[in-house]
Amino acid sequence: MRLSRKLLALPNLDSHLRGVGNRKEKPPGHPPGMLVHVGERRADRVSIRAMAYNADSAEEVEIEDPEQCLRFAGTRGITWIQVAGLHDPEPIRKLGEAFGIHPLIQEDILNTRSRPKIEEFDDYIFVVAKLLRHDQEADTVEAQQFSLLFLPDGSVLTFLEVSSPVFEPVLQRIRSGAGRIRRWGADYLAWALLDTVIDHYYSVADAIDESLLDHEDLFHDNPRALEPSDLYQLKKEASALHRLVRPIRDITTVLHRSESSLLTPALRPYLRDLHDHALHLLEQTEDLRENAASLRDFYLSEASNRMNGIMKVLTCFSTIFLPLTFLVGVYGMNFAHMPELGLVWAYPALWGIFALISAAMFLFFRKKDWL
Amino acid sequence: MRLSRKLLALPNLDSHLRGVGNRKEKPPGHPPGMLVHVGERRADRVSIRAMAYNADSAEEVEIEDPEQCLRFAGTRGITWIQVAGLHDPEPIRKLGEAFGIHPLIQEDILNTRSRPKIEEFDDYIFVVAKLLRHDQEADTVEAQQFSLLFLPDGSVLTFLEVSSPVFEPVLQRIRSGAGRIRRWGADYLAWALLDTVIDHYYSVADAIDESLLDHEDLFHDNPRALEPSDLYQLKKEASALHRLVRPIRDITTVLHRSESSLLTPALRPYLRDLHDHALHLLEQTEDLRENAASLRDFYLSEASNRMNGIMKVLTCFSTIFLPLTFLVGVYGMNFAHMPELGLVWAYPALWGIFALISAAMFLFFRKKDWL
Amino acid sequence: MRLSRKLLALPNLDSHLRGVGNRKEKPPGHPPGMLVHVGERRADRVSIRAMAYNADSAEEVEIEDPEQCLRFAGTRGITWIQVAGLHDPEPIRKLGEAFGIHPLIQEDILNTRSRPKIEEFDDYIFVVAKLLRHDQEADTVEAQQFSLLFLPDGSVLTFLEVSSPVFEPVLQRIRSGAGRIRRWGADYLAWALLDTVIDHYYSVADAIDESLLDHEDLFHDNPRALEPSDLYQLKKEASALHRLVRPIRDITTVLHRSESSLLTPALRPYLRDLHDHALHLLEQTEDLRENAASLRDFYLSEASNRMNGIMKVLTCFSTIFLPLTFLVGVYGMNFAHMPELGLVWAYPALWGIFALISAAMFLFFRKKDWL
Amino acid sequence: MRLSRKLLALPNLDSHLRGVGNRKEKPPGHPPGMLVHVGERRADRVSIRAMAYNADSAEEVEIEDPEQCLRFAGTRGITWIQVAGLHDPEPIRKLGEAFGIHPLIQEDILNTRSRPKIEEFDDYIFVVAKLLRHDQEADTVEAQQFSLLFLPDGSVLTFLEVSSPVFEPVLQRIRSGAGRIRRWGADYLAWALLDTVIDHYYSVADAIDESLLDHEDLFHDNPRALEPSDLYQLKKEASALHRLVRPIRDITTVLHRSESSLLTPALRPYLRDLHDHALHLLEQTEDLRENAASLRDFYLSEASNRMNGIMKVLTCFSTIFLPLTFLVGVYGMNFAHMPELGLVWAYPALWGIFALISAAMFLFFRKKDWL
Amino acid sequence: MRLSRKLLALPNLDSHLRGVGNRKEKPPGHPPGMLVHVGERRADRVSIRAMAYNADSAEEVEIEDPEQCLRFAGTRGITWIQVAGLHDPEPIRKLGEAFGIHPLIQEDILNTRSRPKIEEFDDYIFVVAKLLRHDQEADTVEAQQFSLLFLPDGSVLTFLEVSSPVFEPVLQRIRSGAGRIRRWGADYLAWALLDTVIDHYYSVADAIDESLLDHEDLFHDNPRALEPSDLYQLKKEASALHRLVRPIRDITTVLHRSESSLLTPALRPYLRDLHDHALHLLEQTEDLRENAASLRDFYLSEASNRMNGIMKVLTCFSTIFLPLTFLVGVYGMNFAHMPELGLVWAYPALWGIFALISAAMFLFFRKKDWL
Repeated sequence: MRLSRKLLALPNLDSHLRGVGNRKEKPPGHPPGMLVHVGERRADRVSIRAMAYNADSAEEVEIEDPEQCLRFAGTRGITWIQVAGLHDPEPIRKLGEAFGIHPLIQEDILNTRSRPKIEEFDDYIFVVAKLLRHDQEADTVEAQQFSLLFLPDGSVLTFLEVSSPVFEPVLQRIRSGAGRIRRWGADYLAWALLDTVIDHYYSVADAIDESLLDHEDLFHDNPRALEPSDLYQLKKEASALHRLVRPIRDITTVLHRSESSLLTPALRPYLRDLHDHALHLLEQTEDLRENAASLRDFYLSEASNRMNGIMKVLTCFSTIFLPLTFLVGVYGMNFAHMPELGLVWAYPALWGIFALISAAMFLFFRKKDWL
Repeated sequence: MRLSRKLLALPNLDSHLRGVGNRKEKPPGHPPGMLVHVGERRADRVSIRAMAYNADSAEEVEIEDPEQCLRFAGTRGITWIQVAGLHDPEPIRKLGEAFGIHPLIQEDILNTRSRPKIEEFDDYIFVVAKLLRHDQEADTVEAQQFSLLFLPDGSVLTFLEVSSPVFEPVLQRIRSGAGRIRRWGADYLAWALLDTVIDHYYSVADAIDESLLDHEDLFHDNPRALEPSDLYQLKKEASALHRLVRPIRDITTVLHRSESSLLTPALRPYLRDLHDHALHLLEQTEDLRENAASLRDFYLSEASNRMNGIMKVLTCFSTIFLPLTFLVGVYGMNFAHMPELGLVWAYPALWGIFALISAAMFLFFRKKDWL
Repeated sequence: MRLSRKLLALPNLDSHLRGVGNRKEKPPGHPPGMLVHVGERRADRVSIRAMAYNADSAEEVEIEDPEQCLRFAGTRGITWIQVAGLHDPEPIRKLGEAFGIHPLIQEDILNTRSRPKIEEFDDYIFVVAKLLRHDQEADTVEAQQFSLLFLPDGSVLTFLEVSSPVFEPVLQRIRSGAGRIRRWGADYLAWALLDTVIDHYYSVADAIDESLLDHEDLFHDNPRALEPSDLYQLKKEASALHRLVRPIRDITTVLHRSESSLLTPALRPYLRDLHDHALHLLEQTEDLRENAASLRDFYLSEASNRMNGIMKVLTCFSTIFLPLTFLVGVYGMNFAHMPELGLVWAYPALWGIFALISAAMFLFFRKKDWL
Repeated sequence: MRLSRKLLALPNLDSHLRGVGNRKEKPPGHPPGMLVHVGERRADRVSIRAMAYNADSAEEVEIEDPEQCLRFAGTRGITWIQVAGLHDPEPIRKLGEAFGIHPLIQEDILNTRSRPKIEEFDDYIFVVAKLLRHDQEADTVEAQQFSLLFLPDGSVLTFLEVSSPVFEPVLQRIRSGAGRIRRWGADYLAWALLDTVIDHYYSVADAIDESLLDHEDLFHDNPRALEPSDLYQLKKEASALHRLVRPIRDITTVLHRSESSLLTPALRPYLRDLHDHALHLLEQTEDLRENAASLRDFYLSEASNRMNGIMKVLTCFSTIFLPLTFLVGVYGMNFAHMPELGLVWAYPALWGIFALISAAMFLFFRKKDWL
Repeated sequence: MRLSRKLLALPNLDSHLRGVGNRKEKPPGHPPGMLVHVGERRADRVSIRAMAYNADSAEEVEIEDPEQCLRFAGTRGITWIQVAGLHDPEPIRKLGEAFGIHPLIQEDILNTRSRPKIEEFDDYIFVVAKLLRHDQEADTVEAQQFSLLFLPDGSVLTFLEVSSPVFEPVLQRIRSGAGRIRRWGADYLAWALLDTVIDHYYSVADAIDESLLDHEDLFHDNPRALEPSDLYQLKKEASALHRLVRPIRDITTVLHRSESSLLTPALRPYLRDLHDHALHLLEQTEDLRENAASLRDFYLSEASNRMNGIMKVLTCFSTIFLPLTFLVGVYGMNFAHMPELGLVWAYPALWGIFALISAAMFLFFRKKDWL
């Protein structure tokens, strides 16, 4: 059960990511800064939820008008504004104006096909990345655009194409006040969100690795049941993931070395830890790629090996029958004068000769290691 | 329909680029700075159009004598002089003298086979690149040399081998006064032109990617319909595009890090964005190359797989007939004393033996997974 | 004997390391700094042994309560606290609090799947790596997490998943007072431990190399006895080791260039030596990888070569029989008028023709170098 | 005609360069600075020609005694001393002493197998490179050692193994006084010579590219006419050229970044241009290598494809005859009781069966896409 | 003759180097600085020869007690102490103490398996490398450990595993007083020794290159005589040499950039020259590797090509006989009513049909280019 399920794991990570990550559908020559949503519409409506908290209390509201955000942002020390739905540029534009975000950044938020990156400005930090989520039940991977703006007034703005349960544990920690999250600053919140994003990359990498291990097991148990196209699929998925992780590593490198005044010194070890995870993830996906390629090579050489073995056996078999068939042909000839034909013991003797020839050739092939 | 059209997409990108980009036809030892057009003649006459504008108004003229350009350039804040046609060195020389351009730069403008690059001088910036344009109807790619000179007096000079509709949207934006273009400086115009150039690279990359996806679909639906030479062609096109994008990335890197006084600070985010696009494009073309190579490898291994499968079946089939043919030969022999020949039930019994042998071998091959 | 043993060497290094090194089983979104053991439980109980020594004397105790450690650490100049067993976070937390270790470091110690790395803080140095040990008798490789904390008060804390005889020689040198170890500082102890770790990597590399040499010998003596899966296994093991050594090199690079005040100048040559060993090891594992890949390629090409040779011989053989079988068929025909059939010498003459044809074809194949 | 000529192009570039570039035949332990010619003797006698010029006039003399050079060098502003023939160390030694050249440089001039490089001294610049020349008529490439010394007194010394028409255009420009060459300094002369050297690399690269294009055309027209050894030859030539260009790029990088007082600021754009050409050349030769490798891969896969197709057709054909031949064997048996044999319509009916079986199998193979 | 000799050239360079270079046989956890010889014993006794010289005179002595060295070192300006034999740590320890060498360096001298490297201390420079020597008569390569200590008092200490004629020419030059060697300082001596070491690498590279050329010739003359294992051997030897040269390049890079006060400015050009040779050597060995790999690839593709050609011919041949054999079977059937059998001209007519079928199929195969 587990096997057949796993063999179908992540069937479309590569094609999905490729569709998501590789196109830029703005028409060439389009004026910059004119906000346009690029990508497919994935949410019904734009939802904005805001969470304001400090060490003492936390409050969550659903916000209708983006312009209310700024007011709400002042109520407690730290505010997290969660926007889900990017098909409508208007709320983004309003939020951007309210918080003083550069038009190009607004454009990047709306372009769900932009490259994962970090941009440090004097007064805010902008991160855009893919958010992956491995749905364990359906065994599929959801990918969507995730952007994060971290502002000096203690506001963190996150933008998703469609709402996702990914950040639920962080929300829970804020609500319950467990751990450091309520006591530390907004930079800690930003870090916690990015850490969660990377954790989800790990679970996707693990899913691919598990699928790879299942295929390796299957290869050892029943090589013929292995579909070469699965191996290519695995390799493509591992490559696709690796290509997604590379820019994540670049993002954490910048954060880790950042001297931005927005990041408090106490956060440094956490950023180093984040960078470490990104490096680890990069190595892991590299290993995945290498392992997938190695399994495919092994499969190919095994297949060709098995094929060669079969051909050899069958050819040897044919070769043994060649002289026998020749001989029976000889004594099927209609010459008037074939002295052997009249001998009483000729027929059984010939069977003896057949046996001798077969045995001799069989032994010869054996000795030569051809059979 | 779509498929067959796509399979013919971009049939000559590689060979065209190779012809364009790889030759330097100046005879060895030719004196430098003596202006000679290198390349094939692609326009009937040299056309010079000039567009002068400021925030309030815009004026376009057709210029006959290159020496008038300098005068026209003073009429409004920003002037864009568009030269199309490089087969005649004279206008370039005159423009070069009028605007004080180094003879080697004039030579580079005329040499339609020079390497894409950027050169920053104290008083102007020079960019030369290939301009690609994917003609969606003919499904062909036009490539030509594009050079841009950005001067401190607010003039931008562009040089093309032959006029092209590529920059029409920018012209429209200037004419209509929409967006920032009329309000910002000449550096914004230069940026807008380069951004347009890169946008067109994207559309070429998308065309190759679409063709690749079509081939992948075709491979899954009907592998035999796939021509291996198409796969090689795709790989070559992806490589050719990738090689063209590499120097574009170098150009945007220089611009992005430039400390030239010609570039206003407000343009920095735009240059960063441009650099970002170039990086993204480079990654995308790298992925294209990898995907094309991977599809070709997959195709090859599938073809060899299928071949092996066929050979195996046919060989097993042959092998089953070997002992049967031997046996019928045996009973075709003319020995005087072959007791079996006289038995009434021998002939039907032999058919039984034939059936037994065939079935046994068939089952054996099945069990061994050879059939 | 030796051969068959060697062919089974290190059967599961790769899979073990992969299981150990590649997973991060903290649930996504888990709050950081909340100490959780990640990995499988490998020891029954947490054992803490402490060794305090100076140039004059050395004392070893078994410590029950982690909080006693700090007190014991003051008794002599240098203290080495050895913790074995990481399944219970409590002792680590207590030690961490007593010695003032950052919660993220405590977390790294407990996470037996964290990436090998070094972290230099103002007041301590933290190293985490895999500890490999080649058990020569069982011919297996044990891998476990090893972490080392080096504190400015002369304490060195080491953490293992399960106790191991690896550091026994160092303990012996401290007990006996031989060499410099008792006279030098705690930094020398830390160095001696890391040097021992690297020495054990060498012995694993040597074991793989020996196995590789055995396979090369086997290949030359009896290529058919070679299992291609063994070659893939060797390549995977060499790759796995290489991937483990890379971060070790990064660790020694940092140590070698460190300007930490915790490291006395007299230790510099030793750290350079350590770095040298890591570089050497990295080159050796790279060579191992290359040699394993090369042996596999050679095997594949030899196998295909041998196969081709066999097919050629058998096909030539078949081809010789083709005209003979045709001829015997001809004289088996039942035409009323076949003049040859009545000739007395026809039958022996035909045998002569058979011999002629066979010989001619054999010589032809020989001349053409096909046989 | 053109094709067959081209297919033989550059037959020995690789082997020639390998012989020239890879050996150092000084016996090991040979004392340095003791001048010995390394390489084969290629000129009958050492010829020294000198050209002295300034903006007003130019004078050329044949010099017998190397010691006269220094005196002649003072006559006009700029002196170009051309030495052809390196088999005799004496003139080099005398020139070296006269102009104050370090003994190791003298040795490098004489060692026709030294590595292309540039050395900047306080008072002179030394460049050594291979001079390639594509002889279009014989379609061969001549390679020889070229060294250039550029001295602060306005002297440029060039050394060749044998005189060559390569620098004739530069001589012509000096003689005629055309262009800048007579008006600018000795650094411009040195630049003009190096530019000529690189131009000749371009023509060799173009010759290889043309040969490659011819082979690609041939491959598409008549793949069987393609010799695989030609493809390997092309790949080796492209690699050999690429390896020669790499140090050229290093030389131009040093010149381009040089802060030597020997190079006037006005020359900077020219050195940048030179560097640009070297980079372009490097990319072009890299592309050549890649294209040659790609053509070879394509050829191999096509050959194996064609082979597989043939085998498939022939095997299907054989398989169709198997059951037919079995059946005719059956009715050739001599059993006493074979009821079919007596039926009048049995023989024509059997032909019908033969036709049916053949048709069925043919259709089956067709349907399976095996034929 | 030359060929067969060459084909056996350097049969064990790789395995020798691998044995020498890859093992570290110190038991893990061994205390550092305790001097132990690592490697196999290659000399009977430790021999110490000393050569003291200045511009005026030179004196050579055989030294019994290592402690005399220091005294002898003071007699003239420059002293070269040559130690041959490393199996006994005692003399090394005494020399080390006398000249004030760090214990880790003493250990490196004794460890004949340490990595080639250079270490610059304030008061001495230490170089360890492999010394290769191509014995032209036996066509074998001797490899041994070579270490060099260069001290500020004008002493140069060299250590070999076993005495070798390699440095004889340098000794000769000192004895005879020819060239600069007696007039220049101890740094010049150290340089001369390293230059000699590199010269011997060249001769090994040349031997491999010659063997490669011989194989290429053999491949063109008689491909079947080529042993694929020879090609693998060549590739391994080229790789092994390349791996040895890499650290040599690192050593010369350090020397070339060194700012050590031990190296006089006059030596700079010589060190640059040395570095140049190392770079050249590295490129040459890289080319060797590439050429060996390319020859192997070519061989493989040629072998598969030839094989395919043979199979094709033989299969066509078989296919021609298929219908013929079927036909003779038909007329061997025993049906009572086969009208053809009674016709007088049927038998000769059938022979005509045989000829027709054969010819038609032959022509068909020819036309299809299958034969």
